[in-house]
Amino acid sequence: MDNPYVLNHKTPTRKDYIDTSDFDQSEILDMVKVSTVVRDYIKSGGTLDTLYHKNLAMIFEQKSTRTRVSFEVGMEQLGGHALNLAPGSIQLGAHETIGDTAQVLSRMCDMIMARVDRHESIFELAARSSVPVINGMSDYNHPTQELGDIITIFDHLPKDKPWNKVKVVFAGDRTQVCASLMMITTKMGMNFIQYGPPAKWLSDDFLKIGRANNQMYGGSVHVTDNPAYLEGADFIYTDVWYGLYDKETPKEVYMREFYPKYQVNDEMLAMTGNPNVKFMHCLPAIRNEEVTDSVLDGPHSVAWDEAENRLTAQRGLLLYFSGKAQEALDTIKRQKEEK
Amino acid sequence: MDNPYVLNHKTPTRKDYIDTSDFDQSEILDMVKVSTVVRDYIKSGGTLDTLYHKNLAMIFEQKSTRTRVSFEVGMEQLGGHALNLAPGSIQLGAHETIGDTAQVLSRMCDMIMARVDRHESIFELAARSSVPVINGMSDYNHPTQELGDIITIFDHLPKDKPWNKVKVVFAGDRTQVCASLMMITTKMGMNFIQYGPPAKWLSDDFLKIGRANNQMYGGSVHVTDNPAYLEGADFIYTDVWYGLYDKETPKEVYMREFYPKYQVNDEMLAMTGNPNVKFMHCLPAIRNEEVTDSVLDGPHSVAWDEAENRLTAQRGLLLYFSGKAQEALDTIKRQKEEK
Amino acid sequence: MDNPYVLNHKTPTRKDYIDTSDFDQSEILDMVKVSTVVRDYIKSGGTLDTLYHKNLAMIFEQKSTRTRVSFEVGMEQLGGHALNLAPGSIQLGAHETIGDTAQVLSRMCDMIMARVDRHESIFELAARSSVPVINGMSDYNHPTQELGDIITIFDHLPKDKPWNKVKVVFAGDRTQVCASLMMITTKMGMNFIQYGPPAKWLSDDFLKIGRANNQMYGGSVHVTDNPAYLEGADFIYTDVWYGLYDKETPKEVYMREFYPKYQVNDEMLAMTGNPNVKFMHCLPAIRNEEVTDSVLDGPHSVAWDEAENRLTAQRGLLLYFSGKAQEALDTIKRQKEEK
Repeated sequence: MDNPYVLNHKTPTRKDYIDTSDFDQSEILDMVKVSTVVRDYIKSGGTLDTLYHKNLAMIFEQKSTRTRVSFEVGMEQLGGHALNLAPGSIQLGAHETIGDTAQVLSRMCDMIMARVDRHESIFELAARSSVPVINGMSDYNHPTQELGDIITIFDHLPKDKPWNKVKVVFAGDRTQVCASLMMITTKMGMNFIQYGPPAKWLSDDFLKIGRANNQMYGGSVHVTDNPAYLEGADFIYTDVWYGLYDKETPKEVYMREFYPKYQVNDEMLAMTGNPNVKFMHCLPAIRNEEVTDSVLDGPHSVAWDEAENRLTAQRGLLLYFSGKAQEALDTIKRQKEEK
Repeated sequence: MDNPYVLNHKTPTRKDYIDTSDFDQSEILDMVKVSTVVRDYIKSGGTLDTLYHKNLAMIFEQKSTRTRVSFEVGMEQLGGHALNLAPGSIQLGAHETIGDTAQVLSRMCDMIMARVDRHESIFELAARSSVPVINGMSDYNHPTQELGDIITIFDHLPKDKPWNKVKVVFAGDRTQVCASLMMITTKMGMNFIQYGPPAKWLSDDFLKIGRANNQMYGGSVHVTDNPAYLEGADFIYTDVWYGLYDKETPKEVYMREFYPKYQVNDEMLAMTGNPNVKFMHCLPAIRNEEVTDSVLDGPHSVAWDEAENRLTAQRGLLLYFSGKAQEALDTIKRQKEEK
Repeated sequence: MDNPYVLNHKTPTRKDYIDTSDFDQSEILDMVKVSTVVRDYIKSGGTLDTLYHKNLAMIFEQKSTRTRVSFEVGMEQLGGHALNLAPGSIQLGAHETIGDTAQVLSRMCDMIMARVDRHESIFELAARSSVPVINGMSDYNHPTQELGDIITIFDHLPKDKPWNKVKVVFAGDRTQVCASLMMITTKMGMNFIQYGPPAKWLSDDFLKIGRANNQMYGGSVHVTDNPAYLEGADFIYTDVWYGLYDKETPKEVYMREFYPKYQVNDEMLAMTGNPNVKFMHCLPAIRNEEVTDSVLDGPHSVAWDEAENRLTAQRGLLLYFSGKAQEALDTIKRQKEEK
């Protein structure tokens, strides 16, 4: 990645971060760059106050651990503050439309992040907000997870393999995270496989997005129930089996569909034939359902690095969409030169 | 407003902000002054840390969006921090009296803001607290809304009309916001009308407060169901019809009382005969009940400026009641001179 | 306490603060020292930013007022930030094990404080967390209360009596706070009495800890229903009678057990024969059950100082377990010398 202190785009090319499909590869690479340079700087003891006195409103229509903590810590580490508008704590949806809330919040805050029940709510928020809106997960996608995940993949690239030769297999259910992983890996020109039962394959609408990415950036996209496709995987990724967040499936139903064939266990890792295969999980995990303890806690697992990269990504997104990414890189460069 | 950097009163004349009736016009004008000077300074890129390391405890017995966000952002922008003690999250009322909680909080925090079910709770909080208490709305009044509203009225004064000639019409139900608007406009010597059905007029107890203000500061106060009183209005204000916050009225009942006569729509605005009439709403609004989309989103609406002025007012109140209003103005004056 | 700016131990001798029984007297005295020196410095107008950009995750499985507010204000006053992960607001316990949450939080935050239902949860958190874990109360003990309480006792020591001659009587039920008070007072070599009905005496497991402390540090520990033991008490402490926090006892049951004999009232204070006896309570109090208004609000009560010392203790613990206690003392010393 060439000059680590210079972005392709000095200012955000869009107001909102709703869907990575709205951005081309060069924009995503800018987000990766600012995220990782800031991470390395902070981990080496540096401090930044680029978002001093800036306030992020965090709207949660669903519970959250990682998204909530990573945005709140991210704002704090950049000198700003995040407000936690928890489910049921404000008048959103009850006595006020989401659009009116957006318009009010954008008169008081500098940015809005929202985890919503319905993807359309993000569009309504963005349309009525005059400040940037970040999608913190909907029933359609999870783009902040995407950025953290692609950073984790870059952190753990196989030695001497160009990134566009990487093979990423998602095992299990077509969750938002599955769809999101497909979108970001194909955006990078990687090879993406969903390995799961046919009834749980990504829909054609999603696959079209992946194929369009293949045409633009190379790489490939497949859905399959054939374990032969595990061969040569560099990353195996999984997510819970109990369904999209507002429609949980009973355990006996999903176990029949997924268990044992699609559980990520030592046998599945062995089937890749790759002794350096990495295991990823967006978390939370239901241990010994979609993944065994031995894999999640074992030497192939990068799931905890991946969790930490949620924070890495949020800081980058906050800087990028506040239009301060280049300023943060300039500050870091200057402070390093002064040493 | 004479010298923008000099207050009538260098220090707060009372510990608590419970009711604007406790203050005379010169004190309210001080609050307006510090609020607007700080707003303009921050909006032009200035930063203040006058409340550095100060902590505000925010107690909510009721849900809140605007009050919560404006106080939390306000503290943050002044260098301090606000703690969100959400409904049910602390032991208030359950295992501890409100007075004991007040006494404990005032040993740990620098200020308390509370939205309470019963107005008496604010008195109990203030009596037992050794730090300033700000009333963030009770079943009696909403004084932080009052300050934001009078700032919004000053921001949008009719050209060449002295402020004490202004006519403000509240259309609809005698909510706390209606009573509060009457109290603050008459405190400023303005002319206040409540236009609503007789069964929903402000009580005599409130009207007495208005008339006492008339005697002291000029202006007038009327309650009426006669639309002729709309003539010449500079501001039309409304609030929801569903009742005071803990006693909601069924929709069919309130629609019968208020609809269509008291709905603020284009026809009502036209009845003022004033092409520059402004529309205000404390929000949240039930669209197309008490106000039409065309008015709320139209060119007469200053409801979103009004929402932003909640933040304007909270910063001013936080500075005023912490005894740091003059210090903040001095800092701003000095920083402007240095430029 | 000798040199107020020099600790016995320059760095924490353990990662976590789970139980004061894990520490010897010299370590507890270090915590007292950093807590009180920082308190006195801040109360005299000093500011510290030793925990600048540090983030504390606060997990609450139970409601809290004092613990929540004192940790949140404490972090803010030291330049950092505390995240309030309220009951039900994160996926802890529901879709994620406490251990996995701990591992994720320790990749994003610098410290974890948890109020838990079961004491074992604190061990699981500490085992899986790579950052310090502070026990904010469990069903077994309440060690942050202990530190605040011992500071309050030091603040109000009887004149000309060495601290190891002090007599502390806990009246009432064997709550976590009763057990904790026994552990910390005997750690200091003081004389501890629980005065209550035999069915509600501290268990032998707890008494063994007290007796081991007696052997190491002097002092004594007794449980009794004999009011003669009140004679000569320097401190009378009580807590609510309704039971441990997740198993509340019906009022008629506990009143029969404790009332009126074990209520702390003016008569009980008189029975000590000590005109300077002090009254303590961890709060919240059920007024006129375990303590009368006349005692809680009277001249013997130090319960409100004790509440404030929750904040005193939390700041000290945050500095101590982040390994920055000596740094904070050095900063304070330097700033005092510069004046």
